[in-house]
Amino acid sequence: MNWYAIQQTLVPMGAESPLENPSVVVLDSEELSQCPKLSGLEKVLCHTPAVRDAKVCKVEIRSNCITGTIVLPRTTKTGVRLACGYLLTSKQAILIDDTGVLQTHMKRLVKKKLFTGQSVGRFFYDILELLIDKDLYHLEEIEVQAEKLEDRILSGQLDEGSAAMTQLRKEAMAWFRYYSQLDEMACELQESENSFFSKEEKHLFHMFENRVNRLREESQLLREYCTQIQTMFQSEIDIRQNRIMKILTLVTTIFFPLSLLVGWYGMNFNGMPELSWEYGYPAVIVVSVFIVLVSLWICKKKKFW
Amino acid sequence: MNWYAIQQTLVPMGAESPLENPSVVVLDSEELSQCPKLSGLEKVLCHTPAVRDAKVCKVEIRSNCITGTIVLPRTTKTGVRLACGYLLTSKQAILIDDTGVLQTHMKRLVKKKLFTGQSVGRFFYDILELLIDKDLYHLEEIEVQAEKLEDRILSGQLDEGSAAMTQLRKEAMAWFRYYSQLDEMACELQESENSFFSKEEKHLFHMFENRVNRLREESQLLREYCTQIQTMFQSEIDIRQNRIMKILTLVTTIFFPLSLLVGWYGMNFNGMPELSWEYGYPAVIVVSVFIVLVSLWICKKKKFW
Amino acid sequence: MNWYAIQQTLVPMGAESPLENPSVVVLDSEELSQCPKLSGLEKVLCHTPAVRDAKVCKVEIRSNCITGTIVLPRTTKTGVRLACGYLLTSKQAILIDDTGVLQTHMKRLVKKKLFTGQSVGRFFYDILELLIDKDLYHLEEIEVQAEKLEDRILSGQLDEGSAAMTQLRKEAMAWFRYYSQLDEMACELQESENSFFSKEEKHLFHMFENRVNRLREESQLLREYCTQIQTMFQSEIDIRQNRIMKILTLVTTIFFPLSLLVGWYGMNFNGMPELSWEYGYPAVIVVSVFIVLVSLWICKKKKFW
Amino acid sequence: MNWYAIQQTLVPMGAESPLENPSVVVLDSEELSQCPKLSGLEKVLCHTPAVRDAKVCKVEIRSNCITGTIVLPRTTKTGVRLACGYLLTSKQAILIDDTGVLQTHMKRLVKKKLFTGQSVGRFFYDILELLIDKDLYHLEEIEVQAEKLEDRILSGQLDEGSAAMTQLRKEAMAWFRYYSQLDEMACELQESENSFFSKEEKHLFHMFENRVNRLREESQLLREYCTQIQTMFQSEIDIRQNRIMKILTLVTTIFFPLSLLVGWYGMNFNGMPELSWEYGYPAVIVVSVFIVLVSLWICKKKKFW
Amino acid sequence: MNWYAIQQTLVPMGAESPLENPSVVVLDSEELSQCPKLSGLEKVLCHTPAVRDAKVCKVEIRSNCITGTIVLPRTTKTGVRLACGYLLTSKQAILIDDTGVLQTHMKRLVKKKLFTGQSVGRFFYDILELLIDKDLYHLEEIEVQAEKLEDRILSGQLDEGSAAMTQLRKEAMAWFRYYSQLDEMACELQESENSFFSKEEKHLFHMFENRVNRLREESQLLREYCTQIQTMFQSEIDIRQNRIMKILTLVTTIFFPLSLLVGWYGMNFNGMPELSWEYGYPAVIVVSVFIVLVSLWICKKKKFW
Ligand SMILES: [Mg+2]
Ligand SMILES: [Mg+2]
Ligand SMILES: [Mg+2]
Ligand SMILES: [Mg+2]
Ligand SMILES: [Mg+2]
Ligand SMILES: [Mg+2]
Ligand SMILES: [Mg+2]
Ligand SMILES: [Mg+2]
Ligand SMILES: [Mg+2]
Ligand SMILES: [Mg+2]
Ligand SMILES: [Mg+2]
Ligand SMILES: [Mg+2]
Ligand SMILES: [Mg+2]
Ligand SMILES: [Mg+2]
Ligand SMILES: [Mg+2]
Ligand SMILES: [Mg+2]
Ligand SMILES: [Mg+2]
Ligand SMILES: [Mg+2]
Ligand SMILES: [Mg+2]
Ligand SMILES: [Mg+2]
Ligand SMILES: [Mg+2]
Ligand SMILES: [Mg+2]
Ligand SMILES: [Mg+2]
Ligand SMILES: [Mg+2]
Ligand SMILES: [Mg+2]
Ligand SMILES: [Mg+2]
Ligand SMILES: [Mg+2]
Ligand SMILES: [Mg+2]
Ligand SMILES: [Mg+2]
Ligand SMILES: [Mg+2]
Ligand SMILES: [Mg+2]
Repeated sequence: MNWYAIQQTLVPMGAESPLENPSVVVLDSEELSQCPKLSGLEKVLCHTPAVRDAKVCKVEIRSNCITGTIVLPRTTKTGVRLACGYLLTSKQAILIDDTGVLQTHMKRLVKKKLFTGQSVGRFFYDILELLIDKDLYHLEEIEVQAEKLEDRILSGQLDEGSAAMTQLRKEAMAWFRYYSQLDEMACELQESENSFFSKEEKHLFHMFENRVNRLREESQLLREYCTQIQTMFQSEIDIRQNRIMKILTLVTTIFFPLSLLVGWYGMNFNGMPELSWEYGYPAVIVVSVFIVLVSLWICKKKKFW
Repeated sequence: MNWYAIQQTLVPMGAESPLENPSVVVLDSEELSQCPKLSGLEKVLCHTPAVRDAKVCKVEIRSNCITGTIVLPRTTKTGVRLACGYLLTSKQAILIDDTGVLQTHMKRLVKKKLFTGQSVGRFFYDILELLIDKDLYHLEEIEVQAEKLEDRILSGQLDEGSAAMTQLRKEAMAWFRYYSQLDEMACELQESENSFFSKEEKHLFHMFENRVNRLREESQLLREYCTQIQTMFQSEIDIRQNRIMKILTLVTTIFFPLSLLVGWYGMNFNGMPELSWEYGYPAVIVVSVFIVLVSLWICKKKKFW
Repeated sequence: MNWYAIQQTLVPMGAESPLENPSVVVLDSEELSQCPKLSGLEKVLCHTPAVRDAKVCKVEIRSNCITGTIVLPRTTKTGVRLACGYLLTSKQAILIDDTGVLQTHMKRLVKKKLFTGQSVGRFFYDILELLIDKDLYHLEEIEVQAEKLEDRILSGQLDEGSAAMTQLRKEAMAWFRYYSQLDEMACELQESENSFFSKEEKHLFHMFENRVNRLREESQLLREYCTQIQTMFQSEIDIRQNRIMKILTLVTTIFFPLSLLVGWYGMNFNGMPELSWEYGYPAVIVVSVFIVLVSLWICKKKKFW
Repeated sequence: MNWYAIQQTLVPMGAESPLENPSVVVLDSEELSQCPKLSGLEKVLCHTPAVRDAKVCKVEIRSNCITGTIVLPRTTKTGVRLACGYLLTSKQAILIDDTGVLQTHMKRLVKKKLFTGQSVGRFFYDILELLIDKDLYHLEEIEVQAEKLEDRILSGQLDEGSAAMTQLRKEAMAWFRYYSQLDEMACELQESENSFFSKEEKHLFHMFENRVNRLREESQLLREYCTQIQTMFQSEIDIRQNRIMKILTLVTTIFFPLSLLVGWYGMNFNGMPELSWEYGYPAVIVVSVFIVLVSLWICKKKKFW
Repeated sequence: MNWYAIQQTLVPMGAESPLENPSVVVLDSEELSQCPKLSGLEKVLCHTPAVRDAKVCKVEIRSNCITGTIVLPRTTKTGVRLACGYLLTSKQAILIDDTGVLQTHMKRLVKKKLFTGQSVGRFFYDILELLIDKDLYHLEEIEVQAEKLEDRILSGQLDEGSAAMTQLRKEAMAWFRYYSQLDEMACELQESENSFFSKEEKHLFHMFENRVNRLREESQLLREYCTQIQTMFQSEIDIRQNRIMKILTLVTTIFFPLSLLVGWYGMNFNGMPELSWEYGYPAVIVVSVFIVLVSLWICKKKKFW
């Protein structure tokens, strides 16, 4: 349990609550489950969201507090999805964080001495902005991976691309879902009618919404790019199939006539003058070469290679 | 027929109507068809919706009452679709329920002593919230099934996946349709101009609409995920076809030249010196091995395996 | 030409115009073309829409009248598309109907003694509601047909499904188009600024719009269902093709090696010791059986059946 | 250069400007480039749009005039795209027209003596309405062509349908683009804040927008119909491929076993009792017939025809 | 570092700041990083955007300044993406430009003596308009390339079209993304509540938004055109595959029966009367010709060519 005072900048207070200033407390689920004494928050504590079951980003605006959860489309190294919960009143904020995702951002806020202007709304906006700060780079990484996949497909190095593509599409969808939820959340925060946020703070949330919308659009285009790669992959499979079919048809077209020819003179009829003709065998050789050339010429003309 | 008084919490009253408080009565279609005496509801009873024919979730706002039906995308164990009807006036509510879906939620409301604040609107919001309470888990179950299907397709265990996929897509579509209808219903309830609902109650319906919208978005993403699996399945079919074609082409490419060779020395020409050559037969064996190796080398180069 | 008085209910008046009450007259195109005397409608008669050329549902709001046409996605038994035209003033309505689609609904209105409240707007709303009254059942019929088609495809009974599917998709599109047009029409009627409709009547048109929107959503989902069936059908075609290819490859893989073997001992070389070996022929039989077994084992392993 | 006076109807004035009435002048690009003296239009002439380079329909609302271009998705017989430019002030209109598309409509306006009410806005609305007057028929023509194409594909008469389909899809897209642009144009005209248009005229542009929207919806459905035909064509190609594969597999399944059989008794082993058996040859004939029948029966069972 | 005075037209001032007039200064990133003294801009300089990392077009409206970046979907000849940053106050503008894209437009503004009306907003609008001035031609170039690709596919000249098509789709997507971002930017500029822009200037940004929307619609249609070409290409691949399959089936259908025939008379049975029949060999020749004709007739009937 860490308390911070929201003064002109964020000031860490350790385990003690700053009574006079607006303040933030960061807890994990376990600490919260032990029903701690949080001065000034007794009435609203029952609304604290359960972070462990959180599946979506959401906000709920009540008459005396704002609660919600944020679930990121990323996981810790141990595979746990990054998530946090929040509960805001006009003077205080509880942040619930089991994965340490918020602690990093709190440290950055303290260290960089960013202006938080003695207001919970301003502080919450700063946290939200820090959460999406590097996202354009995350999206770009996915796009770079998609481009690599595309190049490998186009250069024919990839035979079984479905698994990689599926992975990529899922990731892009997860980001798109995340921004859709954040977008709705930012909308709700602006619409909140009770006197939690000043006009200036609502404008901050509007700016946050704009940034989220740009990221959402980017992630949507990323999804459409993945769809394009999938379509292109399907074409490549069909093009390769045509190539295989051409080889099969070529082999068949060359060897079937020859096979018939040699079968022909394997017949055991009595009166087959060619068999006893002096130049019979050389003639068959010549005819065979001729058949091969004709077959090749036909296949060439049909653009088999 | 069960009456409930809407006091600070919901109080079951059995078969008797509580005259002073706002109240709820839960009926089934049969009871309703016997034209029961419902004190205070005589004028509006003609508008009670027919639950048995209900196919969609809807609301109709009249000058003296609000009526509608809710049809869930789930069935009872006997395959009957869960559905209920409702009729609200400013002081009373009729709920028509043949499948018992509402009885469960009524019991929960009574047992948990949830705050219903002596208002029909607040009570109706509570019922709606309970209806969609576990839906995120239902949607997640479908997603887990979809992921299993995807894994089975990717690992090549699934040859005939259309039926399973079709089932999944239908389910996702049913949920999407359900939330689209609930969303419109929540909109209408907020828009209602007559003095049924207070501003606070309308805000509750707005929160309900937000929750429905998050679920709707989830179900839409689920549908798009199903589409992706379908596309991926099609690619897998084509990839498998290429593998079959490669086997066919490989077999043909190896055996056709050999077949020609042995056919060649099956010809009955008189002057074929190879036939009487001492090393003729061994030479054919060597040539055959050579042909096989060349065919295999070509196929290897063409990436046939 | 049939006149009706719009009193508390609709009262048929035969060929005579009721002078005092708001009234409706139902004509067919021929009667209209004979320029009948319609008392009170002389000024606006020039705006009467031509039903015979009608292709879309539309409304045009003029300063002194409202005109439009409605074209249904259904035909009479003789293949003529159901369509009607309408012209509304504040006191009177002309309905033009060549196919009898409105006559049925007029009779129902008269027979059921539905409340029309002495108002042209209320009457027009009643007609519109009757027009879409059974539509959910029409849409359900199409869905049932689609499900049958799907089942037949999945059970492999359908080889050439394109024609049936095309028919279904066209039908679903026709209904979607119809509701899109009705939706826009209902919007326009609500927006009309001149004093044709009272606030209550506009609310009726809003309820009509809501119903149309539910139907439109349903028809859109029906279209998407048709698209899913089409996609599923394509997968089925490809799955069947894989099955055919497997048979071809199996036959080739079994018979080509055998074919080579028997061709081999058909060669006429002098020094082939196997030919004169006592157990040569039985050995070939054994080898043949062995080849067949190996081929079958390979194909089994490659999941050819 | 033709002047028209906008009186209660449109009155052609030849080469002279009507000074008192609102007026229209129709020019071609060449006449305009010669910097003609247009009384009352001197100040705004610099804004006249260049019709020759026009690629889209657009409107630009300036403080003292409204300018724009209209480019139709149709060409003259010589392949030039129909296009015109316009410049409107509150009292006068310049129309630039190189292809004669407007001249026709001007003549119609004069001939039919349509009411133009001494207002430039009303006149411009009339011209716009005339421009889209027959469009539903143009769209229907494309739909008829699409239906013909569909029938030919379904009846298997069309082997190489891509070119025709591509043409159709391009046409449908051109109309869709046209209506999208007209729709935006009509919106802008209604939004114009300066006192160019009266409330009645803005209502006219609203009615025009409604008509354009109906046409846009139609053209969008036409595009989706084209997409459906394309999808159906792809299925047909795949169905045909299955048919070809079945023939190939049938031929292979019948002849390969027979081929093996006759190869078998072409072997030159010493001890082959069948060869010298009296009924050897007839037995082979019987076995061959039996093999053919079995192959046919298998293929029948596998639904090869 | 170049200063310009914004008078009735734009006046270049070299390295000196014009104190009295509104003014613009154009810098590159290096000059900016040296913390130059920019009179009147000291307070806002900290908000100057980093152009080098810019990935999207954006605007951020602060209480005392407007900042943002513009990233074009084009590159310099050396492959660097064109980008610029801007910072606007009510009296001054900083433009950051490393690639020289703005310098060109500044020169044009100065040279053409376009009206900038002593206002930063008007000047910024002029720059934005110049940025998208030729874009319709860029989009048309891409469309022409797409049409060439389409023609090559339709005429069968293109076997491996995926790479070209992918390139085209990426380009179309880049333009679409660019206009989506510019559109949002123009929206934000109009919405800005602080007194940066007058009503007239906001109308200019509205006109800019309209132009951007037309371009966005065009680029979206371009993307859909690319999708159509891709679909058409897939059909062409499948059509070609059918042609290859037909050749294979034709060859097999002709040669397999003949092969059987000659194999038949290669059997070594004792009692084969045909072998010693005088006309045996000629009869086989006749039968062979007959088989070829029948095979060709069947294939003709099955529309194999
Ligand atoms: Mg989407
Ligand atoms: Mg998309
Ligand atoms: Mg795409
Ligand atoms: Mg495919
Ligand atoms: Mg394929
Ligand atoms: Mg959808
Ligand atoms: Mg979808
Ligand atoms: Mg998708
Ligand atoms: Mg898709
Ligand atoms: Mg496929
Ligand atoms: Mg749609
Ligand atoms: Mg769809
Ligand atoms: Mg779908
Ligand atoms: Mg296919
Ligand atoms: Mg396919
Ligand atoms: Mg295929
Ligand atoms: Mg579209
Ligand atoms: Mg579409
Ligand atoms: Mg659609
Ligand atoms: Mg469709
Ligand atoms: Mg195909
Ligand atoms: Mg396909
Ligand atoms: Mg898009
Ligand atoms: Mg696209
Ligand atoms: Mg589209
Ligand atoms: Mg698109
Ligand atoms: Mg399209
Ligand atoms: Mg496809
Ligand atoms: Mg394909
Ligand atoms: Mg194919
Ligand atoms: Mg295919």
